[in-house]
Amino acid sequence: MNKIYVVGIGPGAYDQMTGKAIKALNDSDVIIGYTVYVDLVKEYFADKEFMTTPMKKEVDRCVLAFEEAEKGKTVSMICSGDAGVYGMAGLMYEVGKDYPNTELTIIPGVTAATGGAAVLGAPLIHDFCLISLSDLLTPWEKIEKRLLCASEADFVICLYNPSSKKRHDYLQKACDLMMQHKSPDTVCGIVGHIAREGECEKVMTLKELRDTEVDMFTTVFIGNSQTKKIGGKMVTPRGYKGV
Amino acid sequence: MNKIYVVGIGPGAYDQMTGKAIKALNDSDVIIGYTVYVDLVKEYFADKEFMTTPMKKEVDRCVLAFEEAEKGKTVSMICSGDAGVYGMAGLMYEVGKDYPNTELTIIPGVTAATGGAAVLGAPLIHDFCLISLSDLLTPWEKIEKRLLCASEADFVICLYNPSSKKRHDYLQKACDLMMQHKSPDTVCGIVGHIAREGECEKVMTLKELRDTEVDMFTTVFIGNSQTKKIGGKMVTPRGYKGV
Repeated sequence: MNKIYVVGIGPGAYDQMTGKAIKALNDSDVIIGYTVYVDLVKEYFADKEFMTTPMKKEVDRCVLAFEEAEKGKTVSMICSGDAGVYGMAGLMYEVGKDYPNTELTIIPGVTAATGGAAVLGAPLIHDFCLISLSDLLTPWEKIEKRLLCASEADFVICLYNPSSKKRHDYLQKACDLMMQHKSPDTVCGIVGHIAREGECEKVMTLKELRDTEVDMFTTVFIGNSQTKKIGGKMVTPRGYKGV
Repeated sequence: MNKIYVVGIGPGAYDQMTGKAIKALNDSDVIIGYTVYVDLVKEYFADKEFMTTPMKKEVDRCVLAFEEAEKGKTVSMICSGDAGVYGMAGLMYEVGKDYPNTELTIIPGVTAATGGAAVLGAPLIHDFCLISLSDLLTPWEKIEKRLLCASEADFVICLYNPSSKKRHDYLQKACDLMMQHKSPDTVCGIVGHIAREGECEKVMTLKELRDTEVDMFTTVFIGNSQTKKIGGKMVTPRGYKGV
């Protein structure tokens, strides 16, 4: 049986990888990933073979991993954050249907929602939703529906991919939708470059978030009706019945 | 400034802790937590002082941490999974209002949603919600509303605390609510004792899940309309526009 690890390397810093992820990479002959993620780990696994494919070439990247495994190499496919949260784990199973002699092992990691939450304080704590604003593979109507339903049910919402060159006004559109159900004064926060050089965070209201420019390396948090600001931190209580 | 780390130790196994979490525990004089979690880490940090409080004594546990920190000790408050996902990070900020000379550092970890997902395959991948079925601090009407809204918007749903002695029929009630919008054939999965002794998983339909008994150590996953079973694994695609 050939072996591929699909590894979540966490938000970026080496010390936010799990022991299991480090062991998988050490056990591998070749480490495959998107260029940016490979650059994050390269220095710590200097004796390994590295292979990259650019963004939007995810299927090619999966095929590459299976082809290398078929040569008898142990392969790690790396993803930033968690391998199963907007990561490669799903596509690897789909492409893997053509490679029945290869076994996949998924190794979880710290995703941007929890990595970013730790920087802001404690914004999640209770029930929350992750929503990606990228409409590359999802119709925008579906994203709209999710923003509305999640707001109506008073979830804390964490947004991935809040912006890109082509989608510079998506966060603004999302905030307008959420404000149909959430107060403009809802406590929100943004974190950029989590656990990497240039990490930065800011707590603000939903109204202010609407008019904030963010880039694709930003993770956005919108509180629920109970979320508050305590000493500059964004904090959601455990429930609705007091401490 | 006194120092407290609020540390997510991951789902259970030592090798699923991050390097940063291990370092925080090594740097600490005293490690505080719920008895079950302290037992999970005790053997790896044998030279530390350990203090525990039972379940439902979370406020006491926070006060204990701040009191120990005021004595000049470096304290780690540990949580299973991630410190900010149904963890102690929020309550620590709230209780911390009375202890202005103590600084909190939150250290994220692998939460049951992503740890369990890795065992089942790739159930999350796309937009998802976490919902706790515990109505200890949240009115059941709020939980119902969230189950309905999340189902209506075709989120993948991950349920925490799906059952307890007093709430043995909550999962059944939740499944009935979700089936108002999700097909009874929706692919679902359960994982028990993630990354601990006795880890077990099962993939089934939503209709089957409704009649399944689970315990409080189980994490439950309900797919979206695209989720499928591939080679026994639960896999959600990246979007709605094909691979």
